[in-house]
Amino acid sequence: MNRISRFKRIIEEKGIKNFLVSSPISIYYLTGFPPTTEAYLLYTENDGFELHVTEIDYLEAKNFEKNFTVIKSPLELTISDHMKRRLEKIKEEIFLEYSHLSHFLFNKFFNYNNVKCENGDGLITSMREVKDASEIEKITKAVKITEKGILTAQKNICEGKAELEIAAETEYEMRRNGAEWFAFESLIVAGVRSANPHAKSTMNKLNKGDLVIVDIGCRYEGYCADITRTFTVGEADTRQRELYNLVREAQEHAIEKIKPGVKASYIDLTAREYLREKGYDKYFIHTLGHGLGLETHEAPSISFRNNSDIKQGSVVTIEPGVYIPGWGGIRIEDIIVVDEGKPRVLTNLPKAI
Amino acid sequence: MNRISRFKRIIEEKGIKNFLVSSPISIYYLTGFPPTTEAYLLYTENDGFELHVTEIDYLEAKNFEKNFTVIKSPLELTISDHMKRRLEKIKEEIFLEYSHLSHFLFNKFFNYNNVKCENGDGLITSMREVKDASEIEKITKAVKITEKGILTAQKNICEGKAELEIAAETEYEMRRNGAEWFAFESLIVAGVRSANPHAKSTMNKLNKGDLVIVDIGCRYEGYCADITRTFTVGEADTRQRELYNLVREAQEHAIEKIKPGVKASYIDLTAREYLREKGYDKYFIHTLGHGLGLETHEAPSISFRNNSDIKQGSVVTIEPGVYIPGWGGIRIEDIIVVDEGKPRVLTNLPKAI
Repeated sequence: MNRISRFKRIIEEKGIKNFLVSSPISIYYLTGFPPTTEAYLLYTENDGFELHVTEIDYLEAKNFEKNFTVIKSPLELTISDHMKRRLEKIKEEIFLEYSHLSHFLFNKFFNYNNVKCENGDGLITSMREVKDASEIEKITKAVKITEKGILTAQKNICEGKAELEIAAETEYEMRRNGAEWFAFESLIVAGVRSANPHAKSTMNKLNKGDLVIVDIGCRYEGYCADITRTFTVGEADTRQRELYNLVREAQEHAIEKIKPGVKASYIDLTAREYLREKGYDKYFIHTLGHGLGLETHEAPSISFRNNSDIKQGSVVTIEPGVYIPGWGGIRIEDIIVVDEGKPRVLTNLPKAI
Repeated sequence: MNRISRFKRIIEEKGIKNFLVSSPISIYYLTGFPPTTEAYLLYTENDGFELHVTEIDYLEAKNFEKNFTVIKSPLELTISDHMKRRLEKIKEEIFLEYSHLSHFLFNKFFNYNNVKCENGDGLITSMREVKDASEIEKITKAVKITEKGILTAQKNICEGKAELEIAAETEYEMRRNGAEWFAFESLIVAGVRSANPHAKSTMNKLNKGDLVIVDIGCRYEGYCADITRTFTVGEADTRQRELYNLVREAQEHAIEKIKPGVKASYIDLTAREYLREKGYDKYFIHTLGHGLGLETHEAPSISFRNNSDIKQGSVVTIEPGVYIPGWGGIRIEDIIVVDEGKPRVLTNLPKAI
């Protein structure tokens, strides 16, 4: 059964009569069409699914029309004015994506009348949390292209080269290999600045002995990859080697625990406890990982704060790191499919420093 | 006077006692710090400005601490839980960015008590609409790098080359020349697919006679460029040449009208009427342009629907196009500073087809 029909069945089972999908990623997931401007997918019991798009997106959206009707917002109106008129006809309760609708649009669309609004946030997110075979195939392809980028970065790491120059090489490699676009801003950061997990790449040149974090990802047919490796310029010194191995072991311990039905928090805490035993947990200043799919960060969050069970078919990153101010940072990130039996690691790059 | 102090003066003049800034771009504009994860800038009459960030952003944000206090959201809490606790202390009215706060967070932060919420959407947007000299300098630099990308695309346009291969070359050129990142997904589209203004680049190969739209932009120190040129593979035929000149003339007429105090709608209608006289307005299916700055699309919208006056110091794109289904599309886009006397065109590329 296609996704939009599955979604229809889910909302019917819950007795939901009207649903407004306002997140472009949810629309892409349900219809196959990636909106490039503001768009809305409206379900009403009477009229079924309507995909409202601007004139810019109309022709392309028509190519995907199946189990829904494409409606063009006329150029004379902004699409939000057009939607306001359409939504005025709804008199009963409507479910919305509260996390993907600004409070401004909420007021504009619904504050004028007495329609009852409900939060339908979790419904599409839950569907997206479990990937089918074709989704895993696309993620695998994104991983393969991104691995080529990582290897290109590794080849280019040498004294005197700038972070941005290396980034340019890795992106060039990924795009020539069919990357549709990038999953996020490439992060190639050397030296003490690598102690900031989200530092930006600059024209700074690499020095001998620097740690270099390479955290990159491409998108392929909508699906994201997100991989990190840490290198050194020249031979690693003793402390770099020790901490690298520590992070790697923390990651391995966590990955071993991944299977359907295990709490996400347990996986995070496995890595965190391992670092705590060695006295380094205070330098691990973020959560362990995140789901990956049409978005780089999606459900399930692999966080000590998330006590939900992880599900078979989820795809997650596991990325422990230590960040020592004034010294530098180390992070290793791989992508794993949650599977019965053994967790399936999609990344195949070597992990020796 | 720095921006955050100017903002403080504006809200004091309006008698605003509390203001929550939730858009990362507004935070970047006011503080100089670009958040990489969820962040909030809170102003209260008692405590002044507080920048609340996650642990990931904390160290970097501290480097920008000036006229505001950086507060770290502890790892134990999500930053939205942390903010909820902070916002509970506010008992009077608070102004919010309704367009940049999800309805979910609005409910989470404010629905529990009787604090009165007001929409403060326009305040920072209006400040950003008028650029100072340092902002125009950064946009100019982004334009110069992007122009190198356009020239690289032009050099690479030939029979048999794929759209994505050309995109890879242009992005590589922009990054090696210091582009911090891209302002948007590069759009290099050939043949009849160019009739879709937002089509995606593919591995499709160029054919002799194809129209090729190249719409690219990089970011430099936060500021965006956005330039479009249309080329042909080999010599242009008569109709391609005619329509190209028509779009170019429409653009020239519109640019001539740009000066402070003129309505944005008048500029859009100048180009639209010119195309109407020749019978092509029905193929011009979007608005004429948009403001450009920290975001690729920001105020002022150069649309027939926008009757506001444009202001001295705004930077806008002017990008008429014709899109004929089954034939192809032509668009030309330049970047202009609104200035007394004559509009200042920042782009310097030739415009012959």
